Amino acid sequence: MLQQHRIDGLLHYMAEMDLEQMVIRNPVLIRYFLGYQPRGNDRATILYVSKNNGVKLIVNELTVFPKDLGLELVLHGDQDDVCALIAQHTLHDKPLGFDGEYPAKWLLPLRRHNAASDYVLADRALNLQRAHKDENEMELLREASRMNDRVMQKARTLFRDGVTEREVSRQLSALFKEEGADSPGWAIVAFGENAAHVHHTPGDRQLRAGDAILIDMGAPRGGYHSDMTRTFFWKSVTDHQREVYELVKKANLAAEAAFKPGLLCSQADLIARDLITAGGYGPYFLHRLGHYIGVDLHDPGDIAWYNHDPIEATMAFSCEPGIYLEGQFGVRIEDLVIVTETGCEILNSDNKELEILGL
Amino acid sequence: MLQQHRIDGLLHYMAEMDLEQMVIRNPVLIRYFLGYQPRGNDRATILYVSKNNGVKLIVNELTVFPKDLGLELVLHGDQDDVCALIAQHTLHDKPLGFDGEYPAKWLLPLRRHNAASDYVLADRALNLQRAHKDENEMELLREASRMNDRVMQKARTLFRDGVTEREVSRQLSALFKEEGADSPGWAIVAFGENAAHVHHTPGDRQLRAGDAILIDMGAPRGGYHSDMTRTFFWKSVTDHQREVYELVKKANLAAEAAFKPGLLCSQADLIARDLITAGGYGPYFLHRLGHYIGVDLHDPGDIAWYNHDPIEATMAFSCEPGIYLEGQFGVRIEDLVIVTETGCEILNSDNKELEILGL
Repeated sequence: MLQQHRIDGLLHYMAEMDLEQMVIRNPVLIRYFLGYQPRGNDRATILYVSKNNGVKLIVNELTVFPKDLGLELVLHGDQDDVCALIAQHTLHDKPLGFDGEYPAKWLLPLRRHNAASDYVLADRALNLQRAHKDENEMELLREASRMNDRVMQKARTLFRDGVTEREVSRQLSALFKEEGADSPGWAIVAFGENAAHVHHTPGDRQLRAGDAILIDMGAPRGGYHSDMTRTFFWKSVTDHQREVYELVKKANLAAEAAFKPGLLCSQADLIARDLITAGGYGPYFLHRLGHYIGVDLHDPGDIAWYNHDPIEATMAFSCEPGIYLEGQFGVRIEDLVIVTETGCEILNSDNKELEILGL
Repeated sequence: MLQQHRIDGLLHYMAEMDLEQMVIRNPVLIRYFLGYQPRGNDRATILYVSKNNGVKLIVNELTVFPKDLGLELVLHGDQDDVCALIAQHTLHDKPLGFDGEYPAKWLLPLRRHNAASDYVLADRALNLQRAHKDENEMELLREASRMNDRVMQKARTLFRDGVTEREVSRQLSALFKEEGADSPGWAIVAFGENAAHVHHTPGDRQLRAGDAILIDMGAPRGGYHSDMTRTFFWKSVTDHQREVYELVKKANLAAEAAFKPGLLCSQADLIARDLITAGGYGPYFLHRLGHYIGVDLHDPGDIAWYNHDPIEATMAFSCEPGIYLEGQFGVRIEDLVIVTETGCEILNSDNKELEILGL
């Protein structure tokens, strides 16, 4: 069924852009607005949204979808020209907006059909709408992160001397399925010097005493994503490892304590970054503090020094400071949060105190 | 490593369009040209291809990729404006082409940076290049279809009275992994009246004597896709079912016997369609005869009455006539083929004679 309150929210943000009409093709956003996931990417399923010209779904007659979606359906066949069809339904004398992922093949030919007076990116309206979670979405995000907490708890039992990153990663996939994930999810498992690589692919590296163990993992549940990182140590920890760990933890906690409506994303990033810089590791915090999350693992929008948008209540994002020491080790500590009226709700409850496993 | 012969082929088709430069973002095509699959969709990995202005990969510094890709790298960070960066590398006085899946977010803002004199869809050049398989690709397609044949052979052992479509579908996923697929693949399993739905989702329908059993399945292997459909009958077959089955088989065989360079896609479709129409079931053959296949399950391009492009040697596509009788049953028989200089090589060797299982 059409999620009318989400359409209304989108129309509000479109009005702020002076935009009367837009089209959306990103399948996760179609699911977000319709509560229905179109199947197949090669046949066009496109949502048209306009305040005065209606909400319509342009959909192939071979696509499987529920009959009672609560909006006008515009059917087409494989032989039809999708762009010509879209142009039959748009307001030709107004600009037409597009979602960020909208593909060139159904965009550029619209000009030939005089579909609109201009063609503009309407990402901003969509991103603002999806960034603000409704009650149902918040509960789904909480459930997904509770699942992630359970898997992280069990992850602690998967380590032994000589186990490879790949073996642990495989077992985590199985755990996600057991715990009710929509899919086996994904897991970065990095031992020792590999933990210094932000996007390490789990490989044949075997676990040895003294290694840092970095696990960054998540899986969707009910269509909403989870994402958490913990860093453990295997059998022993050096003073240097402890110093770095405590600094990352301090940055994580400080940022989470500071999140509240009105704080700029850039300010939030700098709260964590300034602490890490003061500790002497500024150049080794290689990435943004966090990213929005929801129907995508990475919803558009960064909690980063270059983004001066304000944080607002009901927004959900990750808080994941890290320090990466090439050839040595890395530490990242990540939770998901939802911004409340006065601060934030932390969706992960897994322990963040330094843990030495295998003792 | 840059697959220079594929780039050369693309430049040839671009020249036919009078196009000197284009950008490609579709991850499967980046893998096709580079032999490397970029990870993550939210950070920009974009291939720029030009005869006189070089081949360059615009890639985020946090993206993991091999160092020796054999082309110029243009690195960017999360804080950078991807469109501004692209515009620094394009020929501003020439049109710029885009792959069909190229997203609006990195297309529409290019105009503000005067990246090119015009912005055009260059799908046609890409689609022609990828449609022509090289020796390596043909061997990978053969291997993927041999795997699919092995799974279809084992599929025959999965049926029993009362088994559900969903159970069989799950077991097929496990078989794909056992047989070396890149992923668990996908399977449409449809019993009885559900076989009349072209894109049925396997559900709780239990198998009963007299049912048609339609299995349309595949999985990628080595990055190349397989796709085959067989229709069996459980314990018995009616004269009506047999008549429909034999007609679909006749259409499948006739089309496969006719494929050769120079035949138009539309003519190929009509060879199968005319036979089914002559048999009295024309209105029940609800879709195109086939689709191209390769790095995508559905490569762009249809073997269909509305596509008048010629078939050419080394092209790979499906041949899948079907008849769908709502409320009763459906039959589809599908193989993959590669066009040769004189005809076609059929990649599936699984039996197509009518089979009654469970006897």
